[in-house]
Amino acid sequence: MRKIYLEDTPLQEAQQRIVESVRFSPQVEIIPTREALGRVTAEPIYAKVSMPNFHAAAMDGVAVKAEMTYGADEQHPVCLKRGEAYVEVDTGDPIPEGYDAVIMIEHIHQIDDDTIEILESVAPWQHIRPIGEDVVVGEVIIADRHKLRPVDLGALLAGGNVTVPVLRKPRVVIIPTGTELIEPSDQVAEGEIIEFNGTVFSAYLQEWGAEPIYHGIVKDDYALIRDAVKAAVQDADMVLLNAGSSAGREDFTVHVVEELGEVLTHGVATRPGKPVVVGMVEGKPIIGLPGYPVSAYLNLEWFARTLVHHYYGLLEPERPRVKATMGRRIVSVMGAEDFIRVTIGCIDGQFIANPLTRSAGVTMSMVRADGLLRIPPGHLGYEQGESVDIELYRPLEQIENTIVATGSHDLSMDVLHSLLRKTNPDRFLVSSHVGSMGGILAIQKGEAHAAGVHLFDEATGTYNLPYIEKYLRDQDVVLIQLVYRQQGWMVKPGNPRGIHSVHDLLQPGITYMNRQRGAGTRLLFDYLLGQEGLDRDQIYGYSREAVSHLSVAAAVAGGTADTGLGIYSAASAMELDFIPVAEERYDLLLSGSFYRSVEGEELLACIRSEAFAQEVEALGGYSCRDSGKILYSSLS
Amino acid sequence: MRKIYLEDTPLQEAQQRIVESVRFSPQVEIIPTREALGRVTAEPIYAKVSMPNFHAAAMDGVAVKAEMTYGADEQHPVCLKRGEAYVEVDTGDPIPEGYDAVIMIEHIHQIDDDTIEILESVAPWQHIRPIGEDVVVGEVIIADRHKLRPVDLGALLAGGNVTVPVLRKPRVVIIPTGTELIEPSDQVAEGEIIEFNGTVFSAYLQEWGAEPIYHGIVKDDYALIRDAVKAAVQDADMVLLNAGSSAGREDFTVHVVEELGEVLTHGVATRPGKPVVVGMVEGKPIIGLPGYPVSAYLNLEWFARTLVHHYYGLLEPERPRVKATMGRRIVSVMGAEDFIRVTIGCIDGQFIANPLTRSAGVTMSMVRADGLLRIPPGHLGYEQGESVDIELYRPLEQIENTIVATGSHDLSMDVLHSLLRKTNPDRFLVSSHVGSMGGILAIQKGEAHAAGVHLFDEATGTYNLPYIEKYLRDQDVVLIQLVYRQQGWMVKPGNPRGIHSVHDLLQPGITYMNRQRGAGTRLLFDYLLGQEGLDRDQIYGYSREAVSHLSVAAAVAGGTADTGLGIYSAASAMELDFIPVAEERYDLLLSGSFYRSVEGEELLACIRSEAFAQEVEALGGYSCRDSGKILYSSLS
Repeated sequence: MRKIYLEDTPLQEAQQRIVESVRFSPQVEIIPTREALGRVTAEPIYAKVSMPNFHAAAMDGVAVKAEMTYGADEQHPVCLKRGEAYVEVDTGDPIPEGYDAVIMIEHIHQIDDDTIEILESVAPWQHIRPIGEDVVVGEVIIADRHKLRPVDLGALLAGGNVTVPVLRKPRVVIIPTGTELIEPSDQVAEGEIIEFNGTVFSAYLQEWGAEPIYHGIVKDDYALIRDAVKAAVQDADMVLLNAGSSAGREDFTVHVVEELGEVLTHGVATRPGKPVVVGMVEGKPIIGLPGYPVSAYLNLEWFARTLVHHYYGLLEPERPRVKATMGRRIVSVMGAEDFIRVTIGCIDGQFIANPLTRSAGVTMSMVRADGLLRIPPGHLGYEQGESVDIELYRPLEQIENTIVATGSHDLSMDVLHSLLRKTNPDRFLVSSHVGSMGGILAIQKGEAHAAGVHLFDEATGTYNLPYIEKYLRDQDVVLIQLVYRQQGWMVKPGNPRGIHSVHDLLQPGITYMNRQRGAGTRLLFDYLLGQEGLDRDQIYGYSREAVSHLSVAAAVAGGTADTGLGIYSAASAMELDFIPVAEERYDLLLSGSFYRSVEGEELLACIRSEAFAQEVEALGGYSCRDSGKILYSSLS
Repeated sequence: MRKIYLEDTPLQEAQQRIVESVRFSPQVEIIPTREALGRVTAEPIYAKVSMPNFHAAAMDGVAVKAEMTYGADEQHPVCLKRGEAYVEVDTGDPIPEGYDAVIMIEHIHQIDDDTIEILESVAPWQHIRPIGEDVVVGEVIIADRHKLRPVDLGALLAGGNVTVPVLRKPRVVIIPTGTELIEPSDQVAEGEIIEFNGTVFSAYLQEWGAEPIYHGIVKDDYALIRDAVKAAVQDADMVLLNAGSSAGREDFTVHVVEELGEVLTHGVATRPGKPVVVGMVEGKPIIGLPGYPVSAYLNLEWFARTLVHHYYGLLEPERPRVKATMGRRIVSVMGAEDFIRVTIGCIDGQFIANPLTRSAGVTMSMVRADGLLRIPPGHLGYEQGESVDIELYRPLEQIENTIVATGSHDLSMDVLHSLLRKTNPDRFLVSSHVGSMGGILAIQKGEAHAAGVHLFDEATGTYNLPYIEKYLRDQDVVLIQLVYRQQGWMVKPGNPRGIHSVHDLLQPGITYMNRQRGAGTRLLFDYLLGQEGLDRDQIYGYSREAVSHLSVAAAVAGGTADTGLGIYSAASAMELDFIPVAEERYDLLLSGSFYRSVEGEELLACIRSEAFAQEVEALGGYSCRDSGKILYSSLS
């Protein structure tokens, strides 16, 4: 029997336990000030020289003796001779001995090369930067435990500090474990996984000011892992083990930490992120991070980031936050603290948040996430329309400049995004895949600017318009022709099962991969079934749903399905054969307010460009003969 | 005659001119993904492999054939044999050929080593991560012109991108000019200035993603500067010249750019920051930055930062902002866009902004600034109490954790800050110097948590209390003894003018340096004059005001004054002699709400600590015999 235990320790309690157990005593390094950006001071830094260290002209003009100008006015100009009563100075020049004021060049009358006329008396020390105006010897320039910014380096140098004592960066050893892991390589065999969590950890640690030390992959072997940890704690300030932090047969982390030191926490009450190990080995904190990327990165932030800041004695910076409206209902796991990755769209001035997948294995959900929504333990979740507070992963000004596209997925949308980035660098386009019907509903609810739709209507034999008339009767919308595209059967190379029509799917042993409800491709399939008088129950695999053309293609390529309906470019990407079935219209439905906006105009210009047609048609299976045509507009 | 011309081009117009003149065509570099943090993609990046590239167990448990579990329930358990009907798998393991579902370890009954019992049927593909769940071949992982974050590197590697095409960093050559400049050195002669702007520029450029190339100092010589620029534009994407951008005799920048290329702007309508040169030489932007640090850094941000982001095709990130209340009236320069450095205090939950010096020569004002207040051209300024919008230089959570101290300056406050940082890393202390009376008024107006005060009252012969009773009669305040300190005459080593009393100041040729109105040291001086029956008009230099002990000491050391009244440690820092005059009480006045707060308790604990007494008394001229004693409290 395998031992199964994972606690549900509240996150804050787990954080407190480790912070209270660790006693960091950072060493001090003296480094050149020029190289000290981002480093943390080890003590308060005092000025060693004054800045300026001489009285300097604060303006371009002439240095004078103030008392020689007394009494000067328009009626009684005072004449001064060069070398006797004035000297020309530029900003920053030392004031010559015996002179005590500067007159701006704009306020003197040059009579001849050696004579000027003064029409106003000046006060002593006028326009002179006295010694120490900026920095005075002995003054504290920079406080203790301060992360040095560019201006701080300037002030340090101005105050004569050519070197600066800083805290050595905390050394964090990263030990990836897993027999299936390989170092980054162009050749990945089946069953192998490129080790990438270590790279992500390193990058985060660098951003937080630590020194990541990548150990290299260790196989899933208790003794090897134990020895690696034993060696690592000698030199490191912190050790990260990844993965093996759960309670499976080959999850060695908790046992290694138990043998070498003390386990403080095994399992936190969060979703995702639960299976983490936090402990101490020879006075060094060790964190066993879960294998699933999302769980790993969240735990890294909760523990490693906290400890790095604790090491420096720095306040942990917070990410900016935003108030948004939930676009969909989100239900929480009871008893756990829930962390939901969300996308945020700025639609008609309102921020709308929509949850991404909750699967902890999907790295791309972290890439796509605009922010993180926390649902406290004991909270049931949020209703659609409810206001929520979101921690931002992307700057708000980027979110505000993002065109939110949804609906059906098509590769032409990727081309469009790429073109838009090139021609309007300030603009972003984010597309999520919810199927054509989902796109129409998103426009209806004001959750998106644009939606890709290709909904065939059996009754009229046309695309999209009947649906718009039904669901968006009273709304301002515009329908734009984006592309024509081929739909067809995606099959293994050589079409080994000989699939050419829906009838061929009835052969014994044929597995179909369908698309999700609301997808245009599913409607097309249903239409094809109906035309041939077939029933969906006759199709083995009808209920299996993939959410994109590429996912269907992946299933066929991977052998879990024999065929699926999809587009040429997806089949081509997966090196599948493609048997054309129909050319369909893939349109872009725009909200009226977006169509009228600058962003809308920019998008339309891209769609109508020569570059768009060229790039899309090069993918194969596309025609752009009508791209950009307005097919329908309810605007007055 | 020197030529004088500087335009007043609106900032935005000047920015637009240069952005429209520049045509960057960044080269592409292929670099290892592991080293690509912060780099900007040169094209959209597609997945080369799927992640996972095999069907993988999503849970620890057993892989089964779903159809073999059909019909299982509590009454009809199904028994499965190891190797025939189930295989143990851990999360991430490949699903063996022929198996199509995973049952979690928690849901199986182990009967014996080779037999398990199932009490529930499972659906095909349950708890299996299908091929491509995370990343599917052909899918766009990262968009074009995207600045790579840690998670992006993970997704790139997961998708088989071991290298990534990125834009070469823009190369920015920094040419510091000035005959008075020296490279950072421990030995600074009079008239020499350590070149530090170049270091600040480099650090900023690094933060923005550019590659700074430090050219080394060029003397103030037209031909040398011209040749340096000519050489620099060959390889650089941008050139920065500093200083010489104004219209003085030795301001060569505008002439060099005129000779080699085209001047687009000379002078922008901003205060500070006006004297900037922006132009083009051989298709490369060149920016002539002013010599004054604050003007230089603002122009760097306005032009170089904008151009770096323009080069990449990235949206320029904005700093966070905060709404604050003006603590003092601020008057704008008419016709110009005004940029005011401010400190921000969080007092009783309200953010209060106060202007720092407007002198463009004071680097320390950028170090001390919590934010920047922009006053649009044509706007007259802001009244005290008016709400303003401030761009933050320091994270808001730091500002919220900052104890705002004001009033008189004393070195013991620096010691206190240092101690506080050590014992409570989350806490900061910022002190500004407005004199003792200024401190009392700041507490009265709710602009500070604490104020250092040492106001001698002639009538009663006591310190501080009579003033508190007069100005803070109805307010909750607590007065804490901080230190006793010696005040005395600061004089040149050996006391060459033989100063021992106020009478000695009447000697011919003696210049005094006074403190600003409201400073306790000035009151002490007035008291000494009064005791001897002397009049302030008899003191040469009475009207010259310095704002700190160190500034007075600097004036004496620099020779612009023969003596001034101040504290021992300031004299000692400037290597002056010190003739004791009186021991005075330097107290800390706390607002009632601060005294009752956690932060207040922490500060008091520091004041009462052994470490504080030791460090302060080690400065010389101090006694901590009563430190932390409550001298007065109006709290009930």
